[in-house]
Formats: sequence, C-alpha cells, structure tokens
Amino acid sequence: MSPTTTASAIVSSSSSSSYFTLFPPTSASPKTKPITKLSFNFSKTQTRNLTLSTKTTTTTTTTIRSAVSIEKEIPETERPNTFLRESDDHDSPSSSSSTVRSRFEKMIREAQDSVCKAIEGADGGAKFKEDVWSRPGGGGGISRVLQDGAVWEKAGVNVSVVYGVMPPEAYRAASATAELKPGPVPFFAAGISSVLHPKNPFAPTLHFNYRYFETDAPKDAPGAPRQWWFGGGTDLTPAYIFEEDVKHFHSVQKSACDKFDPTFYPRFKKWCDDYFYIKHRGERRGLGGIFFDDLNDYDQEMLLSFATECANSVVPAYIPIIEKRKDTPFTDQHKAWQQLRRGRYVEFNLVYDRGTTFGLKTGGRIESILVSLPLTARWEYDHKPENGTEEWKLLDACINPKEWI
Amino acid sequence: MSPTTTASAIVSSSSSSSYFTLFPPTSASPKTKPITKLSFNFSKTQTRNLTLSTKTTTTTTTTIRSAVSIEKEIPETERPNTFLRESDDHDSPSSSSSTVRSRFEKMIREAQDSVCKAIEGADGGAKFKEDVWSRPGGGGGISRVLQDGAVWEKAGVNVSVVYGVMPPEAYRAASATAELKPGPVPFFAAGISSVLHPKNPFAPTLHFNYRYFETDAPKDAPGAPRQWWFGGGTDLTPAYIFEEDVKHFHSVQKSACDKFDPTFYPRFKKWCDDYFYIKHRGERRGLGGIFFDDLNDYDQEMLLSFATECANSVVPAYIPIIEKRKDTPFTDQHKAWQQLRRGRYVEFNLVYDRGTTFGLKTGGRIESILVSLPLTARWEYDHKPENGTEEWKLLDACINPKEWI
Repeated sequence: MSPTTTASAIVSSSSSSSYFTLFPPTSASPKTKPITKLSFNFSKTQTRNLTLSTKTTTTTTTTIRSAVSIEKEIPETERPNTFLRESDDHDSPSSSSSTVRSRFEKMIREAQDSVCKAIEGADGGAKFKEDVWSRPGGGGGISRVLQDGAVWEKAGVNVSVVYGVMPPEAYRAASATAELKPGPVPFFAAGISSVLHPKNPFAPTLHFNYRYFETDAPKDAPGAPRQWWFGGGTDLTPAYIFEEDVKHFHSVQKSACDKFDPTFYPRFKKWCDDYFYIKHRGERRGLGGIFFDDLNDYDQEMLLSFATECANSVVPAYIPIIEKRKDTPFTDQHKAWQQLRRGRYVEFNLVYDRGTTFGLKTGGRIESILVSLPLTARWEYDHKPENGTEEWKLLDACINPKEWI
Repeated sequence: MSPTTTASAIVSSSSSSSYFTLFPPTSASPKTKPITKLSFNFSKTQTRNLTLSTKTTTTTTTTIRSAVSIEKEIPETERPNTFLRESDDHDSPSSSSSTVRSRFEKMIREAQDSVCKAIEGADGGAKFKEDVWSRPGGGGGISRVLQDGAVWEKAGVNVSVVYGVMPPEAYRAASATAELKPGPVPFFAAGISSVLHPKNPFAPTLHFNYRYFETDAPKDAPGAPRQWWFGGGTDLTPAYIFEEDVKHFHSVQKSACDKFDPTFYPRFKKWCDDYFYIKHRGERRGLGGIFFDDLNDYDQEMLLSFATECANSVVPAYIPIIEKRKDTPFTDQHKAWQQLRRGRYVEFNLVYDRGTTFGLKTGGRIESILVSLPLTARWEYDHKPENGTEEWKLLDACINPKEWI
C-alpha cells in the first residue's frame, strides 16, 4: 500500500505571542533547534517524547510535521517567590524586582489570589485545590481549581511563567530583516487565565486572560531588537440574557479601558466579538467583553498598568452578577439549554481557541489547559430554539453581536 | 497597532482522500479555482460566503488563509434514487448502474437501511428522524438520527455523496508529475458514517465509516490518470471492558478481513489503534477495531466487496453486545465514568478526527458532522482512576492497546 502524496494533514504550529501564555505550552533549553519551518525539536533532557504520531505516519497518510517533545513539568510542594530564572537579573539593565517580567508575574499572582478569594467567598464553602509545578529549565505555574462547589460547577484560575524557544518565522522583526534568516528565538511568557462555570443556568460563565510576552534577540543575531507585547481580555458567556447584567459587565470593561485610551473599548469590544467566533456555527461563544493582542505600540509602563487595571476589574465586573443570579430558580429546560451552550463553549475551545489548540499540539500541562472545559456539556441534533423565546434571544445576540452600552 | 509578522495561525486544509467522504465537506462547480496553495475559492453561485474570518484578520493577528464558501445544502422532501450526477453516465465507459460510484452508493444506502433497522429493533421504540438534502451542483445525503431512545442516547447514521474540487497539491499523482503543476482536480466521494452512543455505561459506543473516493484528471491535464481509493473502519469505545464483548467484536472484524487477505486484520487493527489516538492524553479513544485508508493497490472489485463485507459486519459485531449490556444495572459512579470517556470522545473528534475538523473548517453540514458528538459529556479536573479498578483497566487498555484475539 503506497502512501499518498497529497498535501495531507498539516499540524499547524501557531507561534504568535498570545497562544503561549494562556497556559504553559512549552519550555525548552536554549539549545533547542527547529527542524523545519513549523517544527520544534526540543532538548531530550528530561523530556517526554511524543513519538507516537511518527509511528502513525508509517501506516496512515497523516503527515505530522511537528516532532515535539517538551520538558515535563515537575510538581512542587510550595509556591516559590518567583518562577523567573535567576539569569533574568543579569539579562536586564535593572534589577529583577523592577523588570516588567517580574512586576507582571507579581501582578498576575496577586490577581489570582484576589479572584480566588472572591470566588470562594461567593461560593460560600468550596475551596480551590492548588497544583504548583515547575520546569527544569525555568518557569512554572500555579493551577487552582474549584470543582462542584455550591455556586460554581468548575472554576479554574491559573498563572504560568514559560521560557521557550520559537522558530525564527515567529519572530516579530522577521519581516524587517527577512534576509537575515535568524535562528531560533528565545521567548518569555507569563499569564493568568481563568474560566468560571457556575451551576445556575441564569449565572453566566466568565473567562479572562492577561499575558505578557518578550522575545530575546535570535541566538545568531545578538544585535537584533528584543520585542515585547501584551494581550488578554475578559468576556461573559451567559445562557440567558439579563440586559442589566450585560450592561454592567460591559460598563466595567469600558471604564477600565477609558482610563487609558478612549479608543480601547470600542476596538477591543469588536476584537472580542471577532475572536470568540465559532465559525462553523456562525455564532459567537457568548456576549463578548474585551480582547486585545500584540499590544506594543503604547508606552510599556502604560500597558502594564492597563493590564493590571483589567485584571483588577474582573471581580467588580462579575461577582455582583453572580450574587444576583446564583439562586434563581430554574427548570430542567433551562439547565438543558445551559448545557447546550456549554457544548458550544467546548467547540470553541477545542477547535478555535489558540491557547488551547496550541497547548494541546505542543504538549502543555493538559489538566491546566483543559480546565477551561465545563464539568458537563450537551449536544442535541439540530436543536433550534423557537423564535422569540429567551433561548432564541441569546442565540440571536451570539449571531448578531450588539452594542450593550 | 501593527499586525505581527509571525508564522501565525494556519488554518490547515487537509486534502487527503478520506477526510472528504466521512461527511459532506464541500461541493462546488468545476469552475472552482484555488487561490493559494491551501485555499479554495468556490463558485459564488448559490453560496454561503464565510467571510467573517477575513474581517477578523483586520483586528487580530489570525491569518485565515482559506477563503472558503460552499454551495449550501438544500433540504429535500424525498430520497432520490441516486445522488449521482447524470453526467456520471457519460463520463464512464459503462452505464451508471454498473459503475463503482453507483454500486458504492447503493451499498452504503442499503447498509444505512439495515443498520437503522437493527438499531430501532434493539431500541424497541424510538425511531430515526431523517433529513435528506442535496446540493445544486450534484450530490447530497441522508442523515438519520435517533435521539433519547430507550437504549441509545444518540445514534446517527449518515450517507453522503459529494462532488468537489481539490487543490492540485492533493492530487495523488502529483509527485509523479511534479513538473506538471496541474490545476484544480475534480473529485467524487461517497460514504457512510455512523456513531452510536448508548445510555447504559456498560454498553459500548460504536463508530463505523466506509468511503469511496475518485478524482478526475486535472482540468488542464486531461490525459493524466484518474485515481480511486477506499477507506473506512469500525471501532468500539466502551467505558468498561467485558473481555468477551471485545473479543467478539474483534473476531467479527477479523473474519471480514480474512475473507480477503490474511494481512488485513493485523495491519488494519494497528492502523485503528494509531489513528484513534488522543495525542495530548497519550491514550486511544477506545478499544479499536479496524481502520484503513487510501486503499487502492488491490483489485477495485475486490476492495468494493471488502468494504461491503465490512459494512455488513457492523450489525453482527455490535448488536449482540448491546443486547447483553443494555439493561445492566449501574450506579451514578458508573455513569460519571462513562461521561468522562464521552468527554474524551469529544476531544478526539473535535481536535483530531480528520473528517470532523476538515468538515468544520470547510463548511460542511454542521448538524451531520457533529451528530458524532455524544448527547452529554463531562470533564473533571485531574481525574485519575484508582489503580486496579475497572475504570483503571479501561484506561490502561486505551494507553496500551492490547491484542484481543
């Protein structure tokens, strides 16, 4: 039986900024060298080699072009003061305590603490389970999950700090120095990422994620410029629309944005509607919020403050809605509709979300990546809500995004 | 804000044989021309233009390289005698009734009837809902779904016949004529695809799919050879192992294979284990069966008979297991474990299954594509069955595929 010579399946490795930092996708020593345009071949030291895909190619026509093996994460019993490499001190002109890397890590860890505290407070009993992990080459993370609480069926709040190496094609300055053909580019990424799925079908799901990304100069072009950028956003996914809730949520996002730039909210609101798009359904995952990526054409200090403001806005934007809706009586039909929308959430995250798909393909910490999935979800064949019903109104708002404020 | 110049997200369009035929991914008039290496730009006549992805690129860094719009399916009130184009008569040296296209369509439609009849019989009450649809340029399909029956929570049995155009890179003979740079290649694909999810956690899920694929010569290279091939398989996904059930299932697959070639079963059994691999989990979706693809290096009549034998083996391989397990008493814990395994099923289908991922990205009939998803599924954070339990045994067999016979 001859293998085909078709274009075949390409396992695409997106290497853009944001996809690394949602969760810890990869980490490798600086020895790392890419084999081909979109492939990594990480150091074999302390790695978990995902070679089965290669075996597959001998009998199927799948061309898995990535040969990815990554440093396995190591469980830690205690939270370290920092996940930063010591060498970050020397690389930086200022001391570690004042670098953007260090201040961003501090900010996301404080945000993790304050969000988890607010969630536990509103849940009124359940506690987050914490997993701390590190990677031998530097970096690590803290995953916190609250499962089967009184209010939330699943709430995950993760921070991670990742050192990795990206293929030269991913280097932001590549086009300016196209002739240079630089080597692999070391990068640093830190982020907080959270998905909160309540039980009550009238209480909305919330997602937020804020991340900071830096590249070093390519190894063989030490004079080339370093790059940095910010990304993130906060968005709301209800199964039923309470207009006052959605208005409140969007108003808090707008206030956070307006403190920095009046163009931010309208731009990032639209970006959010565009990003959380389930293309095969022609509908958004939810009712949006803000989303931005690759933000670097403002003052770096200003953007660090902006990301901090956004992260600090999560609790005031979300918890008042939960307090109002968590005990609303509901029927089996309400619950079934919420479960169908949870199915859409799964579809978006597994098919489109760049953090998830990149993490899955490159071997990140699976339980951290997939904590974003709801505890339960449902798929009914050809389900169509009746025109004019509350379910139809939600669907309509997902198909035709609205201006809420 | 400047767009990045990274490698960014590539929406990969696998164009290998099998991915078209599971479900109706695309259909377009022969005028169709590919824009770039991995992009389609289908005829605008009667199309649904999926342009939102393009809008997205103005504000995000996502580079959606496919500009796909496809002919929208039209609901039909009656099943036609055939979904084949009339022109298939003229293209073929023999009459339509005796072409492989025509006989394969007849076979899969008969298989659909007999499997649905057996399912309804075993369910003892619920009936399949049928949706018939066609596309203006030729082709169409019959989707049958039984939902919330006594035995099955969701059972889908679909047949489809698709006429489409693939980019020249996908043409199987391309390597032999690498200098030729042929134009778009018209193709024909027909298949039956089915996923059957029972309610009882001791009754296994079954998936099967048999498909036949033909390409015409590229439009601008009329002398180039036509190509054809067969693909398919049947596999079992239980939540709990009953060794006698798995042995029975694999024995029926082996018997079907052995009638044609003694090498088939061992090769296709391994291929199945390799294909249904959830790479990010390091585990298979289930306990396998047989899987083959791009099969064309045997006599065409022999392979048509083999596919027919395999399709006819579905009922004797599966229904006796269902009869034995459908009423087994179970606890909430058994059900929760089944739901977790259903979650894995969703992960495989949305992340790896080529029919599903290709269908979603190119705009196939969504409800037909996603009928493979279970009615309900579950994701628990960091769930690990205790060593030695029945749940652990299933997981172990998914991680380390076994020889069952």
